[in-house]
Amino acid sequence: MVAEIAIAPVATNVSEAVNESFAHQGAMMAWDARLLLLAEGQVEIRVPMQAAVTQQHGFFHGGVIGALADSAGGYAANTLLMPERECLTAEYKINIVAPGIGDTLIARGKVFKAGKSLVVAGAEVYAVKDGVEKLCAIMQQTLFVIPRKPHTK
Amino acid sequence: MVAEIAIAPVATNVSEAVNESFAHQGAMMAWDARLLLLAEGQVEIRVPMQAAVTQQHGFFHGGVIGALADSAGGYAANTLLMPERECLTAEYKINIVAPGIGDTLIARGKVFKAGKSLVVAGAEVYAVKDGVEKLCAIMQQTLFVIPRKPHTK
Amino acid sequence: MVAEIAIAPVATNVSEAVNESFAHQGAMMAWDARLLLLAEGQVEIRVPMQAAVTQQHGFFHGGVIGALADSAGGYAANTLLMPERECLTAEYKINIVAPGIGDTLIARGKVFKAGKSLVVAGAEVYAVKDGVEKLCAIMQQTLFVIPRKPHTK
Amino acid sequence: MVAEIAIAPVATNVSEAVNESFAHQGAMMAWDARLLLLAEGQVEIRVPMQAAVTQQHGFFHGGVIGALADSAGGYAANTLLMPERECLTAEYKINIVAPGIGDTLIARGKVFKAGKSLVVAGAEVYAVKDGVEKLCAIMQQTLFVIPRKPHTK
Repeated sequence: MVAEIAIAPVATNVSEAVNESFAHQGAMMAWDARLLLLAEGQVEIRVPMQAAVTQQHGFFHGGVIGALADSAGGYAANTLLMPERECLTAEYKINIVAPGIGDTLIARGKVFKAGKSLVVAGAEVYAVKDGVEKLCAIMQQTLFVIPRKPHTK
Repeated sequence: MVAEIAIAPVATNVSEAVNESFAHQGAMMAWDARLLLLAEGQVEIRVPMQAAVTQQHGFFHGGVIGALADSAGGYAANTLLMPERECLTAEYKINIVAPGIGDTLIARGKVFKAGKSLVVAGAEVYAVKDGVEKLCAIMQQTLFVIPRKPHTK
Repeated sequence: MVAEIAIAPVATNVSEAVNESFAHQGAMMAWDARLLLLAEGQVEIRVPMQAAVTQQHGFFHGGVIGALADSAGGYAANTLLMPERECLTAEYKINIVAPGIGDTLIARGKVFKAGKSLVVAGAEVYAVKDGVEKLCAIMQQTLFVIPRKPHTK
Repeated sequence: MVAEIAIAPVATNVSEAVNESFAHQGAMMAWDARLLLLAEGQVEIRVPMQAAVTQQHGFFHGGVIGALADSAGGYAANTLLMPERECLTAEYKINIVAPGIGDTLIARGKVFKAGKSLVVAGAEVYAVKDGVEKLCAIMQQTLFVIPRKPHTK
């Protein structure tokens, strides 16, 4: 999987660092997730429907919805922190407001408040069916800022 | 994957329904997750380390930790609801208290309060390294009770 | 305390029911809280600085900020439910993003998704100092819909 | 109001600092809240029923339940941090699992994980009616550690 090219005004060195980090997340790669840098403090992640993301009724699994929202909020924060720093998830809370029914899951992450040590971010998750987006989850999250660590090979 | 046999006093028809539901969760199967029914209102889920569950530093991904905790709380509730009813996740909140470093991730779910329409559950997630369990996350969750739906084939 | 008159298109019977309910909340009355119905699914609550709302540094107490946000989300939902139904808080999660420093605390509640049994709402809380509003908290909440109960005298 | 004397092994200088901080929380004093230091990392706060803590049905207000839980978790953390340091609430999440019906509200706070910068704590809140405690809320919280600041006079 090749991460999407940024279409919004995120500096090149930031974009490279963010995409490189994302490409090293085995969990996102296993789901063929694609990252789009929307703007500083905003990203979008898309995952196609497949067996590996389903719950018992064949819908997107609530845990997958949560994982995607968590990543979207975290990478939204990373667009403001990288390349020198990055963030770890301290906690997140997600409301599933509709079943994740559709062919694609889209999580849009956004930074609400960027502090020195903590970043508060959020994400909205949409399920796309027949080209129509339907809101299926709302997430709120606290991230902890750390110096950037080398990723694994 | 074959779900573990229950070792605790969960009735056979409940155990069958819970294991059948779990075995139809593509997300859990993709990670080779194993469910153990500990007791009424309590379950354990284990997932081995593998590329598909990692974040950029090679640890268990926060979203995977959340997904496992969400499933553990949900199936803990299902041991009290199935076979006639089941539950959907309304929301969950998880604190990651340590990096998920190790060879196995264990989520232990437990029901705190079982109401008629809503169940409040929780889970603790441990990362096991060299045989030593270390707490890595604490989750609190609200589940919505529904009549049991047929799962997908 | 007399609740403010609604300035937005909330039906009169809804407005009367909401204001009557709010006026029976001893906790809100003790803080001289004022409710403003902004629109269907949206309310604002204001509380003036006073000893009874402070923490140890003389700022608005985090618990007060949470209580106000909880009420704002709940009454935002009530504008869609009353007069026949009302809601109880199932849970809420709040991030305090800045200290509550100022002379007035404003919580603006908004419904994100109104289901038959559950309503998901949110609130933003601002502290006003020298006429300038500063975001101090973001709240996300799940409410449970019930038939309307008579309030206490 | 005089804070209760600690009955558990909390060092005297810690106990003094914690009680002094609590006594400066106008919000807790206005409700005649009493703090009991149970042990290192554990406290209890009690509030008697009164008009200033009610919602529209005359029960303990959900926001008051949240405020008490928030304080209980925070002071549980402070028993490990004071006198040199203290904590601010970064965020909390609370499930109301039963109406707050009774003559006394008791919040018991406990530290789950004390890190260098962040502390994760929780609280259980009980309503006492006719001498019987009933669980009414469960709270999970993230606190941010800071050097101790002087309180207001």
